[in-house]
Amino acid sequence: MSDGVRDMSDERFFVHYRISQEWIDVERIAQALCLDQTVELSADLVPEELIAQQIVGRIEHIAPCPESQAYEAVISFATKLVKHDICQLLNVIFGMCSLNPLVRVVHLEFPSSLSGTLPGARFGLREIRHLVECYNRPLVCGVLKPLGLSSQELARLAAQFAAGGLDMIKDDQALADQPWCRFEERVARCAEAVNRVNRETGRRCLYFVNVTGPCEMLSKRCRFAKDAGASGLLMCPGLMGFDALRQMAHDARIALPVMSHPAFLGSFIHSPAQGIAPSVLFGELPRALGADISVYPLFGGPYGIDRMEWIKTTEACTRSWGSFRPICPTVAGRLQVARISEIRELGGDDCVYIVGGELQRRKDDIVGMCQRLLRSVRRDC
Amino acid sequence: MSDGVRDMSDERFFVHYRISQEWIDVERIAQALCLDQTVELSADLVPEELIAQQIVGRIEHIAPCPESQAYEAVISFATKLVKHDICQLLNVIFGMCSLNPLVRVVHLEFPSSLSGTLPGARFGLREIRHLVECYNRPLVCGVLKPLGLSSQELARLAAQFAAGGLDMIKDDQALADQPWCRFEERVARCAEAVNRVNRETGRRCLYFVNVTGPCEMLSKRCRFAKDAGASGLLMCPGLMGFDALRQMAHDARIALPVMSHPAFLGSFIHSPAQGIAPSVLFGELPRALGADISVYPLFGGPYGIDRMEWIKTTEACTRSWGSFRPICPTVAGRLQVARISEIRELGGDDCVYIVGGELQRRKDDIVGMCQRLLRSVRRDC
Repeated sequence: MSDGVRDMSDERFFVHYRISQEWIDVERIAQALCLDQTVELSADLVPEELIAQQIVGRIEHIAPCPESQAYEAVISFATKLVKHDICQLLNVIFGMCSLNPLVRVVHLEFPSSLSGTLPGARFGLREIRHLVECYNRPLVCGVLKPLGLSSQELARLAAQFAAGGLDMIKDDQALADQPWCRFEERVARCAEAVNRVNRETGRRCLYFVNVTGPCEMLSKRCRFAKDAGASGLLMCPGLMGFDALRQMAHDARIALPVMSHPAFLGSFIHSPAQGIAPSVLFGELPRALGADISVYPLFGGPYGIDRMEWIKTTEACTRSWGSFRPICPTVAGRLQVARISEIRELGGDDCVYIVGGELQRRKDDIVGMCQRLLRSVRRDC
Repeated sequence: MSDGVRDMSDERFFVHYRISQEWIDVERIAQALCLDQTVELSADLVPEELIAQQIVGRIEHIAPCPESQAYEAVISFATKLVKHDICQLLNVIFGMCSLNPLVRVVHLEFPSSLSGTLPGARFGLREIRHLVECYNRPLVCGVLKPLGLSSQELARLAAQFAAGGLDMIKDDQALADQPWCRFEERVARCAEAVNRVNRETGRRCLYFVNVTGPCEMLSKRCRFAKDAGASGLLMCPGLMGFDALRQMAHDARIALPVMSHPAFLGSFIHSPAQGIAPSVLFGELPRALGADISVYPLFGGPYGIDRMEWIKTTEACTRSWGSFRPICPTVAGRLQVARISEIRELGGDDCVYIVGGELQRRKDDIVGMCQRLLRSVRRDC
């Protein structure tokens, strides 16, 4: 059964679960998933034929996983359970079974009838390249940090990054609304600094403001950032919920590129038997919900993601997938310049390279550090 | 160094991390946590003495864990990094280190200077008992399910639960705003049904409405539920973010008891080396943020929590902990009546017993099923 045939009904979406159990138990567990993710009743208590047919999930396919001892079960659910409700969509995908130690979500397929619920990126990879007018090399993003600097100091750093030719600048996710560096002052000063340098250089460096914070403030912070002249937004769905990503990306009054950050999401990825695969958590989910750039850690660094998972996540951002626009994958997490060649060979050409503290290694020549980084990236083209 | 001495400064909060590494690596990892959870820079790049002293975390204590090969590191952070911002608090506690496969949060200590940020429960265990006027046995809660029933059918079920003498009724977390069962109609009908039976019986059965859904709707749904006569709210912080719990619990216009549900949070608990211990995730965090009742799975069922973790979680809801009111722990997740004695011996006297499908095993006598359940609970007193 091909994906195409399944999708023609347009009334169901498909969740691929890896079930790390012996074959003899797999079908029973898949059947339990069909019930627990919807009616949460044992089979003998499901009250009516109608509910059994229309509400309970349906096993579409079970097969051994090529790369492990586990099995992959494809279960479909009716779209009417989840339309216009990201929380309910995530609840059906992984709400109760997040508590099952042997179930992992490894792939999602959404029919076009969910495009109102999951509109994908407003900008996406191609439009981000248009915005910064750069088509022939990976994009490079600097990080405003550390927490503890004043608004003035961060704005000075932002101006240096922009003067050094970086394509983008993002707030560190720890920059919030601290007493020595208030949200509004920080955003106004940094946006002004970047825009001033852009006018001088004729380039179009983007500035992504961290709007993660109290949920009542999200919409207000996004609008403030836009009015202050910022050109993008950064948010941590692990802290605010994935639905906040949808809200930010699809509020027409905001209409700024959105960058999704992985803080607090790591526990979903560590066990190969449990959780949500990085390609779904940092690829398919943010892509479907409206992120234009997804940040996730690079393999080989201090974080729990391996080389193959990183490649799959990067592919999940860019490959053809339903009607969703490709989004920018990233290279992030203690990136060392020496690794750039290796990464580009693995398919990192459309990645945004996010460089944090390393750009501040020579305090008196941050512009020069940015220029050297850009030369390394160009040299590898 | 006792907790008391540490807390006197009132300017720092304390995170207990379990680090599952050899002793030779533990101090290095603890030092990395101090940096990565705040400035996210390597030590040689932290720019000023002031930031090193005031922003970077501080190792207070490292000792072997009695029950495992791991070590417990207590790290303190300045409260000024996180005041009035739950997302930032969670980011400092576990944002980047969620990506570290060998770090687990096992205990939190908050000074009274954070009481404006973390006010704890508005009602708590004692006030919930006052509301239902029951002091001498565990409370019992029925669940409105399955997804697929109409508003009328759910209201009929709610009336039967209330007539059967249950102390509380909660929506299943899958009841959202589906086309055949709209949020407003469901809530209005179910609240009306419960209140009508309460007037007839003179009892005070509470009805907790699931308000989990699009983030822009949260406040509106809470107010609708209150205006419709519902007596409590249910929300899944795994889906909407923990800050949404704070928002619901502390909006004075709402002022209803709040029940926290564990959907989508399971991946944090499965590995003893990684994530957030159930006693923190389902105990300390919801308690500090304002939940009055915390739902989490019972040991010995299909979910990944063991007996000791369940006991610790239950204790984390009720034991003396700063100035936070004790909240109601729960017994939930495929509860069988035969297990009630065993559970009460483990300290389940103040638990709310949440019973789902089992109450619907005899469709023609749901009132009788509720009465029998209450007799089992009373008999064990």
